[in-house]
Amino acid sequence: MEKQRSRPVISLLTDFGHGGGYTGAMKGVMISRSEAEIVDITHDVPPQSVIAGAFILKSVAGFFPPGTIHVAVVDPGVGGKRRPIAIKAGKYYFVGPDNGVLIPAGRESGKLEVREIDPKRLDSGTISSTFHGRDIFAPAAALLASGLPFEKIGRLTGKFVDLDFGHVRRTGDSVSGVVLYHDSFGNLITNIPADTFSSIFRTGDKVLSSIGDITRTLDFAATYDTVPPGTALLLKGSHGNIEIAVNRGSARHIFDVSDNADVSFKKIRL
Amino acid sequence: MEKQRSRPVISLLTDFGHGGGYTGAMKGVMISRSEAEIVDITHDVPPQSVIAGAFILKSVAGFFPPGTIHVAVVDPGVGGKRRPIAIKAGKYYFVGPDNGVLIPAGRESGKLEVREIDPKRLDSGTISSTFHGRDIFAPAAALLASGLPFEKIGRLTGKFVDLDFGHVRRTGDSVSGVVLYHDSFGNLITNIPADTFSSIFRTGDKVLSSIGDITRTLDFAATYDTVPPGTALLLKGSHGNIEIAVNRGSARHIFDVSDNADVSFKKIRL
Amino acid sequence: MEKQRSRPVISLLTDFGHGGGYTGAMKGVMISRSEAEIVDITHDVPPQSVIAGAFILKSVAGFFPPGTIHVAVVDPGVGGKRRPIAIKAGKYYFVGPDNGVLIPAGRESGKLEVREIDPKRLDSGTISSTFHGRDIFAPAAALLASGLPFEKIGRLTGKFVDLDFGHVRRTGDSVSGVVLYHDSFGNLITNIPADTFSSIFRTGDKVLSSIGDITRTLDFAATYDTVPPGTALLLKGSHGNIEIAVNRGSARHIFDVSDNADVSFKKIRL
Repeated sequence: MEKQRSRPVISLLTDFGHGGGYTGAMKGVMISRSEAEIVDITHDVPPQSVIAGAFILKSVAGFFPPGTIHVAVVDPGVGGKRRPIAIKAGKYYFVGPDNGVLIPAGRESGKLEVREIDPKRLDSGTISSTFHGRDIFAPAAALLASGLPFEKIGRLTGKFVDLDFGHVRRTGDSVSGVVLYHDSFGNLITNIPADTFSSIFRTGDKVLSSIGDITRTLDFAATYDTVPPGTALLLKGSHGNIEIAVNRGSARHIFDVSDNADVSFKKIRL
Repeated sequence: MEKQRSRPVISLLTDFGHGGGYTGAMKGVMISRSEAEIVDITHDVPPQSVIAGAFILKSVAGFFPPGTIHVAVVDPGVGGKRRPIAIKAGKYYFVGPDNGVLIPAGRESGKLEVREIDPKRLDSGTISSTFHGRDIFAPAAALLASGLPFEKIGRLTGKFVDLDFGHVRRTGDSVSGVVLYHDSFGNLITNIPADTFSSIFRTGDKVLSSIGDITRTLDFAATYDTVPPGTALLLKGSHGNIEIAVNRGSARHIFDVSDNADVSFKKIRL
Repeated sequence: MEKQRSRPVISLLTDFGHGGGYTGAMKGVMISRSEAEIVDITHDVPPQSVIAGAFILKSVAGFFPPGTIHVAVVDPGVGGKRRPIAIKAGKYYFVGPDNGVLIPAGRESGKLEVREIDPKRLDSGTISSTFHGRDIFAPAAALLASGLPFEKIGRLTGKFVDLDFGHVRRTGDSVSGVVLYHDSFGNLITNIPADTFSSIFRTGDKVLSSIGDITRTLDFAATYDTVPPGTALLLKGSHGNIEIAVNRGSARHIFDVSDNADVSFKKIRL
């Protein structure tokens, strides 16, 4: 069903927010130097949360057309020693800082070919020390969108910063992990894959759930509205992981946990 | 003056906010499966407020080019029994949940032809129970943008959830209604059409105004700056309804009413 | 390196926020009447802050392709006597209210040719008194994008509202100015050009810094991470001015100053 699109596509994921015109500057650079269409994934990654950025990118990248160049800039180390990298993996390219933000999405797409972006390729004039999104990553993406062969973006590198989403511990009747991230509805997204969870629990089960300091029995449900409004539940999120949600409400308000809080779920034996 | 645009246009209105990448996933699906251009209307409909979503869509849809496919996802019943529908009305298509969000904009455009989207048409693999925006509505819009004849999207249905904006009561010298919605400036948008209002009041009139529990005499003015900064006024909003505003301030802060609050306006006899 | 893009580009900068569908209505008008691509710069200019809008536009406009039509709507005087204008300057066009928001970006681009937009050109039907973005500026931009010769947009005018970013006072060993604006990271952007600052201070210097009522010694650093997390510093922002930032934190929270607060920086003699 997927077709190559007639114009190249660059997707954009940052923690820049919507003020200040920073994403506008990046888009200006990219459309000045290529015929690409720019598609926003999000600019509201929690500030400097590399792990949330990596998770969202991994969840979304695969829905884009073949050939898409995914640019992700969540970059607390900008201007320091971290390197700018570009990755080819499966049918996609990835461009961003070498801090792990690109890695889970890249792994999901295929075998990683990682290259260190050569600034001399970029024709960027002076490179600022605070805004590599505009001065390095946007020009690099535009070059790829304009047909630069991938091997010319810079030299191959075997070393890069890796990132995963933390340990998931599964026993016979329980599974534990962490909260990765909360979305704009207040849903708490865990690092526990729905497949792992479903090897212990079935839809309709009552689950003894510890979320931070709070322990509750929650339904593992298929949809929000199987529980009354205001009631918490567990469900398989659209990203493929287990999430803690509240029907027509916010799980984050009820459980008041920060990202990276511990969670565990245990079967109730009758 | 309007021309058919050379590429199909899909507009997008949701309550997803800007975090989480949910709109990014929908856009990825749509551009993977069509040559459409995607144009955002808003993603900041108040969460799960079908009525605000319906009002904004009705206010904005008609400014788009003929053939635009308007996708609106404000969907508190996702994964439950509500059906996914597509509508042809006048020069536009509408795609979204059968909860009324599409109806006022559709009615404004022309006679409604309502069809229940047939999931077998969509080639979506497994359909999640929480994200029909990505798994049903985006693929359906992409099919229409790719030229699928409308009658193939699913079977015709005569039953659908209707929605209107509440009762407006007009007597000889007064009119009453409700607050539909507040916008990002804090303006309170009522359900009272400016034409109805103008059959009682003239620009420049002082109007005895009850807004929730507060009663005040307000100017019915043509522009914000006919009153001093910080002063409340009534005016015809750009959407064609009466709104309560504050010059260089927020009516929502002053009157502290929730959406759906009662409002009434009465002529002052001298 | 820059190429003319195959389709005309309209950039959009407003203080409309993301709710309400106001930017959606403008985009609908523009794509109904031209083949332009619309690129958002930002819609989160602080409400009615002409100076912040002007600064962001000046910082970003020059990254866009030749021929771009920059539309900026920060317009506290909408519906009053302020005129709608269009400017040709260097390789760009600018469209917006005559309140100064376009001027610094225009001056940066080249010699200003300022014209008063003639509403009779626009084919807008009734022009609302509250939403000139949709009824005047969007149609004017679409006309230019469709090839209307610039001199036909309206008559030449020699008078227009000017705007600058306030006085910068430099002595032998100190410089003072104001905070123009804070960005979404909480960085405080001053009106002091980095070149002026660098004629007194060198990267690595300790600088006696007064920010509103607070005086501190801050490092003038090249990158955020040369100071420990939570520590304030001075650096050259990506826009070319000096900014006050906090590594992995918010300068706005620490210094608690409003926009337009005084700042001064003095050399420390050892």
